[in-house]
Amino acid sequence: MTEPTIETKVDEAQTAALELATLSDDRRRAGLEAIADAIDERHDEILEANEEDVTEAEEMLEAGEYSQALVDRLKLSPSKLEDISEMVRSVAAQEDPLEKTLEARRLDEGLELYKVAVPIGVVGTVFESRPDALVQIAALGLRSGNAVILKGGSEASNSNRVLYEIIREATADLPDGWAQLIEAREDVTAMLEMDDSIDLLMPRGSSEFVSYIQDNTSIPVLGHTEGVCHVFVDSEADLEMAEDIAFDAKVQYPAVCNAVETLLVHEDVAADFLSGMVSRYEDADVELRGDEATREVVDVGEATDDDWETEYGDLELSIKVVDSLADAIEHITEYGSKHTESIVTEDSDRAAQFMRRLDASSVFHNASTRFADGYRFGLGAEVGISTGKIHARGPVGLEGLTTYKYHLEGDGQLVATYAGEDAKPYLHEEFDAEWTPGRLSRE
Amino acid sequence: MTEPTIETKVDEAQTAALELATLSDDRRRAGLEAIADAIDERHDEILEANEEDVTEAEEMLEAGEYSQALVDRLKLSPSKLEDISEMVRSVAAQEDPLEKTLEARRLDEGLELYKVAVPIGVVGTVFESRPDALVQIAALGLRSGNAVILKGGSEASNSNRVLYEIIREATADLPDGWAQLIEAREDVTAMLEMDDSIDLLMPRGSSEFVSYIQDNTSIPVLGHTEGVCHVFVDSEADLEMAEDIAFDAKVQYPAVCNAVETLLVHEDVAADFLSGMVSRYEDADVELRGDEATREVVDVGEATDDDWETEYGDLELSIKVVDSLADAIEHITEYGSKHTESIVTEDSDRAAQFMRRLDASSVFHNASTRFADGYRFGLGAEVGISTGKIHARGPVGLEGLTTYKYHLEGDGQLVATYAGEDAKPYLHEEFDAEWTPGRLSRE
Repeated sequence: MTEPTIETKVDEAQTAALELATLSDDRRRAGLEAIADAIDERHDEILEANEEDVTEAEEMLEAGEYSQALVDRLKLSPSKLEDISEMVRSVAAQEDPLEKTLEARRLDEGLELYKVAVPIGVVGTVFESRPDALVQIAALGLRSGNAVILKGGSEASNSNRVLYEIIREATADLPDGWAQLIEAREDVTAMLEMDDSIDLLMPRGSSEFVSYIQDNTSIPVLGHTEGVCHVFVDSEADLEMAEDIAFDAKVQYPAVCNAVETLLVHEDVAADFLSGMVSRYEDADVELRGDEATREVVDVGEATDDDWETEYGDLELSIKVVDSLADAIEHITEYGSKHTESIVTEDSDRAAQFMRRLDASSVFHNASTRFADGYRFGLGAEVGISTGKIHARGPVGLEGLTTYKYHLEGDGQLVATYAGEDAKPYLHEEFDAEWTPGRLSRE
Repeated sequence: MTEPTIETKVDEAQTAALELATLSDDRRRAGLEAIADAIDERHDEILEANEEDVTEAEEMLEAGEYSQALVDRLKLSPSKLEDISEMVRSVAAQEDPLEKTLEARRLDEGLELYKVAVPIGVVGTVFESRPDALVQIAALGLRSGNAVILKGGSEASNSNRVLYEIIREATADLPDGWAQLIEAREDVTAMLEMDDSIDLLMPRGSSEFVSYIQDNTSIPVLGHTEGVCHVFVDSEADLEMAEDIAFDAKVQYPAVCNAVETLLVHEDVAADFLSGMVSRYEDADVELRGDEATREVVDVGEATDDDWETEYGDLELSIKVVDSLADAIEHITEYGSKHTESIVTEDSDRAAQFMRRLDASSVFHNASTRFADGYRFGLGAEVGISTGKIHARGPVGLEGLTTYKYHLEGDGQLVATYAGEDAKPYLHEEFDAEWTPGRLSRE
């Protein structure tokens, strides 16, 4: 049997998506439980395939092509597999994002409009080399009733094939073809053109990669490019609090997008604040670069314009002294990536100005930028982080994989009745009800 | 003074957008009232400019380049201008889509997350030749705090220039540059590339035009391509009701996207239903084309495969006899445009199947497709209709021009406290409150 083409796979996914949209919460949750059980039962197979990937990757590491970090991310173990099946069960335990009536409005007696949450349809995903990403994305897709096209990193191809096969077999009673594995890079290029059949793309990876996808498709993209986040220490800040927040925002985990990259300090407190702050950063091996005003009060390297727009993703930080709140806002507007911005101040009006004037998905007052995360925000399973403003913004939960449909229940109403000279008026009265089949006829 | 470039105009709009996002509801409403008053006061100027457009259009009409319908749409009159200022006042009277807290969640004591509705930013619009479109789009933009780039039809350029000037002068106390007029076609092409500065595109016009925009930009597009809508007369239909609905859906106003284009009839009722239905359509001069099974029971023209995918937008209709509910769903899935689909049946389970299985923005039970409209749905001012599924779907109200931002109010919280071995647990407790500046500090 030859491998089906990408077109066939996407066609199958489209057909499956229509079926998935009608599946009950119970069936979708049962599918996830079956996947988790199958992963628990088939450790040997998975680890064997993963061993092949790791061996190949180690050869590439020796040849200087791959990094040790990549090899580490790739490697599965029995305990990692337990974490993965646990993650699938936790997605199953999430509240159903579907089968919800978001709004109900009586247009007239016996003419009821319901706005109902439904899956988006077919979601195309491209993700990094961690094999758990495949399972996570498939689980999120199934929980929200979406068909998924899965393209993982080629380094993990053996692991991905086995995991995909396990998922397919475990969900054999669900609509055939709801998850599709693709492996060829050309298939990704082909996907970018399929705006008639793919409803949403979710790329994960470097910001260059996500930008590339965004620039080369007219399919909506839910993705996250870079995070150049700021902490602004205002003239009215509690400086001890500011020091703790600025430290946490950089050092607690510097490799992630919600870590701070540039610290802005109001000139009125710069001298007081920076001496203690800098020595605390230096004790934690943070490499510091400052503008001229910063270097007048502390001894750090020189920051260039490039620093203001760099996502270090590491124990590096740039520092700038600003002369006002407005100056801080202007700097962030110019160099920020609209991700997460935090002000430390005891003056709530100044905080409100900062929060209102900045165009960023998350704006914080007296809290570390590191809180910008789906789990910490209490959104449940995190689908991703969006740096776009349309549809979903910031940390995105399962809701981000849904859209809505208008259901109108009537008993023969015509528009002609509500138009022209003797037009009957509309009621347009909100009411509280869930759409259920034949709701109207049961009243 | 030379005309600023498109880049300068969009830059100005971006700066204005940040200011607009901070304006109170009162200021935005006052701006709209000022626009309405200025239109009322400056009829002569507007009508004079419009007269120039109409004269040119009439020459084009004589030369066979323009249609009478276009000339009619272009022409303003004192009473039309009154309608326009009335429309602006009605947009002002709409509930504020901003300054709303959509969700509030306590992450921990003293650490409160608010999801707050905010404007999208800069919205690029391209619209048809009716000069009232410019005023309407500017009004919707201002109501929702967005900066707008306005590109109208070249036929209306004199009218548009005067109307734009009036809007600009009437809102001189609002952020400078919040509305920008562009006239050159090259500027539209340039806009399509400006994905760093334009947040949303709203094209209006033919479905070819909207598709062209969608295919040539990576900016999200809120638009409406075609409406190939269906009415399905089920075997369990009340046939009198079905006749009224099918008639209303076609004849009440055939030129619009929510009018029915194909009537699907269950074979069990085809003979009974079609004879009366067809003579009623014929009395209203509807041109009918049917498939073979239809032509066995009524005398109508022959439908080809092209008919199934055609949006007639006129008194024309195709008819197909189907052998089951599943067959009807299959036909609509193949040929429908995901706009509006209606089933007429007394069986609520069959209705529910139809509504759940079809992927369309509006699915109706026992009601005319013509109800699919922002005003009839009670959404207030209609921003447009979206045939996309992401962000906004179906008829879109002012909410479609908003996105959200996460505001986090803390008193010095660090992520380190909630991580690692002695991690403090999150509360993640929903609560009911509006974000206001310094909310936390006032408690």
